[in-house]
Amino acid sequence: MFLKLTVVFIVLLQSYVTLASDPDPVTDFCIPQTDAATILLQCKNSSLATVDDFVFSGIKNPGKFGETGLSSIPVNVNVFPGLNTLGMSMVRADFEIAGVNVPHFHPRATETAVVLEGKIYSGFIDTENRIYAKVIEKGDVMVFPRGLVHFQMNVGSTKATILGSFDSQNPGLLRIPSGIFGSGIKEELLEKAFGLNAKELAKLRKRFGPH
Amino acid sequence: MFLKLTVVFIVLLQSYVTLASDPDPVTDFCIPQTDAATILLQCKNSSLATVDDFVFSGIKNPGKFGETGLSSIPVNVNVFPGLNTLGMSMVRADFEIAGVNVPHFHPRATETAVVLEGKIYSGFIDTENRIYAKVIEKGDVMVFPRGLVHFQMNVGSTKATILGSFDSQNPGLLRIPSGIFGSGIKEELLEKAFGLNAKELAKLRKRFGPH
Amino acid sequence: MFLKLTVVFIVLLQSYVTLASDPDPVTDFCIPQTDAATILLQCKNSSLATVDDFVFSGIKNPGKFGETGLSSIPVNVNVFPGLNTLGMSMVRADFEIAGVNVPHFHPRATETAVVLEGKIYSGFIDTENRIYAKVIEKGDVMVFPRGLVHFQMNVGSTKATILGSFDSQNPGLLRIPSGIFGSGIKEELLEKAFGLNAKELAKLRKRFGPH
Amino acid sequence: MFLKLTVVFIVLLQSYVTLASDPDPVTDFCIPQTDAATILLQCKNSSLATVDDFVFSGIKNPGKFGETGLSSIPVNVNVFPGLNTLGMSMVRADFEIAGVNVPHFHPRATETAVVLEGKIYSGFIDTENRIYAKVIEKGDVMVFPRGLVHFQMNVGSTKATILGSFDSQNPGLLRIPSGIFGSGIKEELLEKAFGLNAKELAKLRKRFGPH
Amino acid sequence: MFLKLTVVFIVLLQSYVTLASDPDPVTDFCIPQTDAATILLQCKNSSLATVDDFVFSGIKNPGKFGETGLSSIPVNVNVFPGLNTLGMSMVRADFEIAGVNVPHFHPRATETAVVLEGKIYSGFIDTENRIYAKVIEKGDVMVFPRGLVHFQMNVGSTKATILGSFDSQNPGLLRIPSGIFGSGIKEELLEKAFGLNAKELAKLRKRFGPH
Amino acid sequence: MFLKLTVVFIVLLQSYVTLASDPDPVTDFCIPQTDAATILLQCKNSSLATVDDFVFSGIKNPGKFGETGLSSIPVNVNVFPGLNTLGMSMVRADFEIAGVNVPHFHPRATETAVVLEGKIYSGFIDTENRIYAKVIEKGDVMVFPRGLVHFQMNVGSTKATILGSFDSQNPGLLRIPSGIFGSGIKEELLEKAFGLNAKELAKLRKRFGPH
Repeated sequence: MFLKLTVVFIVLLQSYVTLASDPDPVTDFCIPQTDAATILLQCKNSSLATVDDFVFSGIKNPGKFGETGLSSIPVNVNVFPGLNTLGMSMVRADFEIAGVNVPHFHPRATETAVVLEGKIYSGFIDTENRIYAKVIEKGDVMVFPRGLVHFQMNVGSTKATILGSFDSQNPGLLRIPSGIFGSGIKEELLEKAFGLNAKELAKLRKRFGPH
Repeated sequence: MFLKLTVVFIVLLQSYVTLASDPDPVTDFCIPQTDAATILLQCKNSSLATVDDFVFSGIKNPGKFGETGLSSIPVNVNVFPGLNTLGMSMVRADFEIAGVNVPHFHPRATETAVVLEGKIYSGFIDTENRIYAKVIEKGDVMVFPRGLVHFQMNVGSTKATILGSFDSQNPGLLRIPSGIFGSGIKEELLEKAFGLNAKELAKLRKRFGPH
Repeated sequence: MFLKLTVVFIVLLQSYVTLASDPDPVTDFCIPQTDAATILLQCKNSSLATVDDFVFSGIKNPGKFGETGLSSIPVNVNVFPGLNTLGMSMVRADFEIAGVNVPHFHPRATETAVVLEGKIYSGFIDTENRIYAKVIEKGDVMVFPRGLVHFQMNVGSTKATILGSFDSQNPGLLRIPSGIFGSGIKEELLEKAFGLNAKELAKLRKRFGPH
Repeated sequence: MFLKLTVVFIVLLQSYVTLASDPDPVTDFCIPQTDAATILLQCKNSSLATVDDFVFSGIKNPGKFGETGLSSIPVNVNVFPGLNTLGMSMVRADFEIAGVNVPHFHPRATETAVVLEGKIYSGFIDTENRIYAKVIEKGDVMVFPRGLVHFQMNVGSTKATILGSFDSQNPGLLRIPSGIFGSGIKEELLEKAFGLNAKELAKLRKRFGPH
Repeated sequence: MFLKLTVVFIVLLQSYVTLASDPDPVTDFCIPQTDAATILLQCKNSSLATVDDFVFSGIKNPGKFGETGLSSIPVNVNVFPGLNTLGMSMVRADFEIAGVNVPHFHPRATETAVVLEGKIYSGFIDTENRIYAKVIEKGDVMVFPRGLVHFQMNVGSTKATILGSFDSQNPGLLRIPSGIFGSGIKEELLEKAFGLNAKELAKLRKRFGPH
Repeated sequence: MFLKLTVVFIVLLQSYVTLASDPDPVTDFCIPQTDAATILLQCKNSSLATVDDFVFSGIKNPGKFGETGLSSIPVNVNVFPGLNTLGMSMVRADFEIAGVNVPHFHPRATETAVVLEGKIYSGFIDTENRIYAKVIEKGDVMVFPRGLVHFQMNVGSTKATILGSFDSQNPGLLRIPSGIFGSGIKEELLEKAFGLNAKELAKLRKRFGPH
């Protein structure tokens, strides 16, 4: 039974972070508790926090590159628990030459992005379908307003790197291609919405569908 | 000169609404001032507000239907100024038989939707690309969490009507098909993102592009 | 002992929903966990959520009518757990002919109300004691600003129905007559506050007092 | 014309304060501008602010006592402009012997009240119509949760004084007796809501109605 | 094992309060549960709350005076659990003649302070290093904007008392002298930051360092 | 007179940005209007916004170094107006060898800092006077919770660079040494607070005082 409870507690442990809300914290910080002896503790006793709870070292190098030539490493509360209740998170994105960060959005945050290396075609779309896009270079900062669709493409002749920051500990991410064509929305609806015939849609669903 | 100032003030008038923020109001209400004699007033003097400032009668009937068989009439602060600072707005959506509300999202609000008439296939996608969809009927309520992509299709044999409510005075709306393919994102990026060839993309851009 | 803990956990389960705050969520959603095997989980593991967590079917018909000819069915997080952290809730109110929704207010929300059927005298009072009231009809929308006292009466010759939406998952409700006269406030205070004599007050207390 | 504009500006001046929202400020402070030369300035240039903008001396003595033996002096942003954007305000309430602060609520704030002198029967009602009331004395602190109806009565043998604080720069105030019976709500509705006959209601309306 | 779990639960009990966020509550109130039989309950079942949960009697007298002639008693959620989720707290500060409240700030709240007795030199510094300070007297109210450094000194010939209110249930407090010189910041950094030599710094570190 | 009004308007222009609040925006974005013809416009008409409103190029190189070997360039709404209402800002900080970023805090934001080059001793103090500090290197991310005092020192053998992000469009900055000793706080208070004699204090005041 103790084992069973422990399992329950560990599941609890992995989920409780999600309850905290981005608005004003009511403590200096709240490190999710991971010590086995006090598995139920929601915030680690603040006297047990150490500086390492507030430092993250996982974005020193690019991650694994995907099909479109992008590697992105999120630094949100799920991997960096010290961010809990503090209202911020980050992402490192590396681009191969011609690499693309497909159109996507974050439902819960604005993003500021700084180019660390390279030349990036970068932009967003507002709710009037207007596009705001241009090539930005090393040292440029671009802001993507909360919840708006944005995208990037390495248009330089070298690898490129961007550092993004968010005003939420867990901004969320929905990539349009896989979200729309890979999630199983009724085919008839998609055909009508995009003006595609069954064959065209099937190609897209095959590409982005769950495998 | 007075004319010039008046123009300036009227422009001001049309834009100041956008500054208010959805969070906690600091007055009972704040009706944007429209009376010519006091063009600069940001909130109408509260003693001049009338009950008609708080009633909107523009959704008694469906609006004009579009290409996908949908008519939607937003009831946000832009058409119903009394909503200013009150943190809410609405929408009436009518569907022809087989009519589709294309995948879209509201960057600044959760939506609760009630079916007034008909049978609607209705759903949303979360940030793990999981779909939550089913057919809902007259009297059913469905909630679409803040910022997530959702969609609907009339799958019944009669017209259908939905009433939606939002927890923002101006939730915003981005329809995915026209936003992605009709806003002018660089072709090379879209081809790579969606795995489309130039001809396939051209068809989509033609359908959704600005005319 | 396991039983005892289980009881504790179930009590916990029924109360934890109340801790979440209406402001910006930090996850797509957070369905309160009800599965027995993981009773402590605060948010159901998101991969276990189903579309039925986001659909509520309990307002297809009116509820039971009360003394003043009103039936109201709240659709808040207590009955529709999928609303948790999403910042919205609803209510269906049905009125018999001449039925009255007594003066009341919601301490934590603005309300937008749409008339689905009938003719309703509907209004609210601001903090200057000004009244904003008129008869609204099928299709009209009226907004009641956050925390202000409002009221309704069916002044048509048929039953009437209103659908209300709130910008809180749990707006709260205080009906003035029973709150003031049925809660046990010291009689001397009420007599002085309302200018009533002991007999007049006793009548009101009898009508609204706890039985 | 300049005169006309000036009038417009002064009206503006008196109303613009209401636009600011209680949530997180984006500046240290924002003193509403009152200098004639810069009448349009929304926040006084911060270099022109003085310490007197942040000090209020109007509650050193009680105000004028009303019919129920209460004097209350609000210290909100309307009389103490330095509170603008800072999310707080206060009130001084003095009670004659047996004086009553009638049941009322603040739609936009929690209140903490400290007894400076005297013995006060003090309480509030929650949304389940439960009462929380007791006699508190000099030095006691009582909290009235946001938006809930509360009331007080001097039950000691001397004058009494309370100091209240609010977490809004403009909490609002609705006194139940005058709000309900003095605002002009349709008589038929009130009769039905309170179970009063026409004569009983007329007495209440006469007492609280606008004169 | 039950004992062990109980210990775990009690630790939980003492920490869970910190998770709640100051923004809009979603219940009337949320009294942290302390009854042994239901140790896990996050909010006490609201039907078990009593008026004493909302009254605090611990500031009727000054506390113990410290080295600078100040006694301060915080009334936050840690000592007055009924404040939980309600967004407010208080402090009573008493000053000996010439007593000093050293420069400090509250990271999570604005403070309004009322002089109950005495003459206090009181002020704050904005982010442009401008000072706003003057002598305030009995009955004066002064506001210290959120997060700004402030300080006080009894400049009268009698003891003095101030009552402060905050718009957070747990505003936090950092006293500059002990925070900067008593927390163990690298000496080289402090020497350079303050232009002190090793001996001067050592004196300050000795005075404020942990003992 | 037109000139006078124009001056008024320009002053207005420079101050209105400060009214917006960091919480949830109600529009996609709100670029402060700077075009002379429409000087009063609070948000630029969104159709006139261009991509350059959302890109900032002023941190490609370090700024001017100060006395402690630090150059810091804030990227907040005052220099990058496109951030208005979007809830975020940034800073670039460059350190000479042994350069120091003196103890300081931001009253309105959490900060996440990424080391772009070098080895930095970096830390913060919580409200219990506990220090969290260590040497971080290229690629490390450290978070400084909202409102807490933090500091940095280049302890490597090369120049160092840090990129900071904030969850406010205008986080504010108070440097402790100059704020406390250079703002004109009464000498007697500072002597008592820091345990300094008149001569010691005079040295500090001379160093940090306004010149």
